[in-house]
Amino acid sequence: MTFATELFEALHASGWDGQGITRDTYGVGESAALDIIESAAGTHGLETERDAAANLVVTLPGSEPALPFLACGSHLDSVPQGGNFDGAAGVIAGLTAVVRMRAEGIVPRRTIRVYGLRGEESAAFGRSYIGSSALFGVLPAADLNLRHAVSGDTLRDRMRSVGADVDRIERGEVLLPPASVAAWLELHIEQGPVLVAREIPVAVVTGIRGNVRHRTVECIGEAGHSGAVPRSLRHDTVFAVAELLTLLDHAWQSFLTSGSDLVVTAGVLGTEPAEHAIARIPGRMHFSFEARSESQVTLDRYYALFLAGCRRIEAERGVRFVPGPPLHTAPAVMDPNWVDRLRDVVRRLDLSDQPMASGAGHDAAVFANSGVPSAMIFIRNEHGSHNPLEAMDMSDFNKGAEVLRMALIEGCA
Amino acid sequence: MTFATELFEALHASGWDGQGITRDTYGVGESAALDIIESAAGTHGLETERDAAANLVVTLPGSEPALPFLACGSHLDSVPQGGNFDGAAGVIAGLTAVVRMRAEGIVPRRTIRVYGLRGEESAAFGRSYIGSSALFGVLPAADLNLRHAVSGDTLRDRMRSVGADVDRIERGEVLLPPASVAAWLELHIEQGPVLVAREIPVAVVTGIRGNVRHRTVECIGEAGHSGAVPRSLRHDTVFAVAELLTLLDHAWQSFLTSGSDLVVTAGVLGTEPAEHAIARIPGRMHFSFEARSESQVTLDRYYALFLAGCRRIEAERGVRFVPGPPLHTAPAVMDPNWVDRLRDVVRRLDLSDQPMASGAGHDAAVFANSGVPSAMIFIRNEHGSHNPLEAMDMSDFNKGAEVLRMALIEGCA
Repeated sequence: MTFATELFEALHASGWDGQGITRDTYGVGESAALDIIESAAGTHGLETERDAAANLVVTLPGSEPALPFLACGSHLDSVPQGGNFDGAAGVIAGLTAVVRMRAEGIVPRRTIRVYGLRGEESAAFGRSYIGSSALFGVLPAADLNLRHAVSGDTLRDRMRSVGADVDRIERGEVLLPPASVAAWLELHIEQGPVLVAREIPVAVVTGIRGNVRHRTVECIGEAGHSGAVPRSLRHDTVFAVAELLTLLDHAWQSFLTSGSDLVVTAGVLGTEPAEHAIARIPGRMHFSFEARSESQVTLDRYYALFLAGCRRIEAERGVRFVPGPPLHTAPAVMDPNWVDRLRDVVRRLDLSDQPMASGAGHDAAVFANSGVPSAMIFIRNEHGSHNPLEAMDMSDFNKGAEVLRMALIEGCA
Repeated sequence: MTFATELFEALHASGWDGQGITRDTYGVGESAALDIIESAAGTHGLETERDAAANLVVTLPGSEPALPFLACGSHLDSVPQGGNFDGAAGVIAGLTAVVRMRAEGIVPRRTIRVYGLRGEESAAFGRSYIGSSALFGVLPAADLNLRHAVSGDTLRDRMRSVGADVDRIERGEVLLPPASVAAWLELHIEQGPVLVAREIPVAVVTGIRGNVRHRTVECIGEAGHSGAVPRSLRHDTVFAVAELLTLLDHAWQSFLTSGSDLVVTAGVLGTEPAEHAIARIPGRMHFSFEARSESQVTLDRYYALFLAGCRRIEAERGVRFVPGPPLHTAPAVMDPNWVDRLRDVVRRLDLSDQPMASGAGHDAAVFANSGVPSAMIFIRNEHGSHNPLEAMDMSDFNKGAEVLRMALIEGCA
């Protein structure tokens, strides 16, 4: 059994709750995972420590320790009843790389650090990327008062209980100066079906999608008797919203055809139960709007098109669209030099080089938006993530881990 | 004060419940209305009786009583907290006509009967057209066991309590042979906004729309992470249903452009609360489908187009449409000769002749579908019906009543 397989099995044995893997954010299960990784690192003669946000840091010292260090890893928490690979794969890949480098007597020029981050999942506190955000002083102080969805503990108490320096975090201190980090490389399972569909084991990530959202947009028209009001006198919200969505769908296809990265979703939509009747013209309905892209320009253009579509349909159909406040999350650009280096390694390993955007968010976005050159490697994975059925082949993992190892060695040179 | 105005005021005084007009189906309020009309008819020397379904019948005998008689009128019940004109206008118009004929000494060749029908509204028992259906033996026996929405009384008990011959009705006996009725003429307020929009007081009805419905159609696709699944791998039910509805909307406009009568409504629609998330591709949604037309051919063609649209979108998007059972209600064709006679009268009275379909159902559909040549006159009315705000001008009513009176006289000749 390989070192990586042993670690995955140890994490599985520790985290299995009978239904799935539970490594609770800044909690017992997450801490147990950090302990397992730390113990394995120590066994192989690597230095370990916990940083001021209580993340695990494994260090392979470089020959020129004054240089900014290379960082890699991912997170060790999971959603409740999740899978074993989401997060852990990136930590194990990084550890595997430095263990082998040490075993082979390779002393890199730059120090390499492997992070086992805490608190990436939002399931516990409704807040993602806690461990990495704390490192860069961008965890809002108010979020320390968030309460755990199940236990009701505050995030502050949970963080303090595992040794985080909550006072510094609350003051927004930069615990890890971005300039001290040469790069952040994160391997992670893909949380969507793209690599399965493409039949390729790994892909270099070109960017992490940002988004623009309205949690809800109301459409207000006029109710009426479905038999007695002719088309010309109707202000039917269902046909109005259908026209808007069809317009958005066609525009989405056009954006893709012209090479833009974009996904669009209206996940929640409906007429109003209070006025529900088959024989009533629907006078009100609501829908959610979300567009995601790795390009802010694309988001801005598409959102402008959405607003213009609302205005046109309002004028034509005598309805009103009343959107709630827009929510914006900026895309995270991956570092072009690191993307090129990773793609070069992929090709030299005779793997298919088909880079892709990440639709889900990752700690890498926090590093990138804090000014650390960042890049990611996705591993093929079936059944999505955040469920016990997530399935990553070890042969795929090994290919991705090899891409990471070679990039770390070459990045230190 | 005119005779008609006096009757409307008497009905209003009797039916006002503090919020609106309530003349409960086969109940006290409805009976009081029948009594008011019967009393007024008697005062003017007309014969009155209650038929075997307990409807009020006012008779002006003709000179050739063996001929099939001419029938007119409408219903005297109302929805709870409804308006004063829905139904009553047709009874008062008919009574006004025969009272004047009698006062002027006109003895028609055919006997004329004015009906004050019971039980037209479905609010009480979930069943419409009870009084007219019972006359033609088409009230299903099982419906006698329907319970009143508020009191819980059975329809059987309610009908018996006002003198209906429930045993004959339960056996489906024909209480009024269609061949004995030369025609049914019903004046009624329009329950939609068409005459207000056209700025005309009356319109001859060309037909009563039938419909085809699915109370619900499920669309089944595949849920997924809204950020991580690209367009080409999605099976998004919201965009699928939006495309279908947009297709239906465009086809509807085409049908209208080519002169067909059609209204289309999806009154109830939504994603599934159990899987609601803004960041989840909606894997299930549902909608209701209703098309109404006065032409069965139009309904059949449009419904075929709906089914074909489902099939095409299923193939293109990898979703499935699963409709519940279709419900069909046949259109009721108004008698062309009577429609022509009414339109001719309208033009001779210098009124704008713009015939229209009825979207709401009426007792006239029961007469027509039982084989009685039938026709209707709509009166302009604001604010729809089934609410206390329904508003009919007496000057509009008088024009419509005059159309009815002239048509009755000419139809007897």
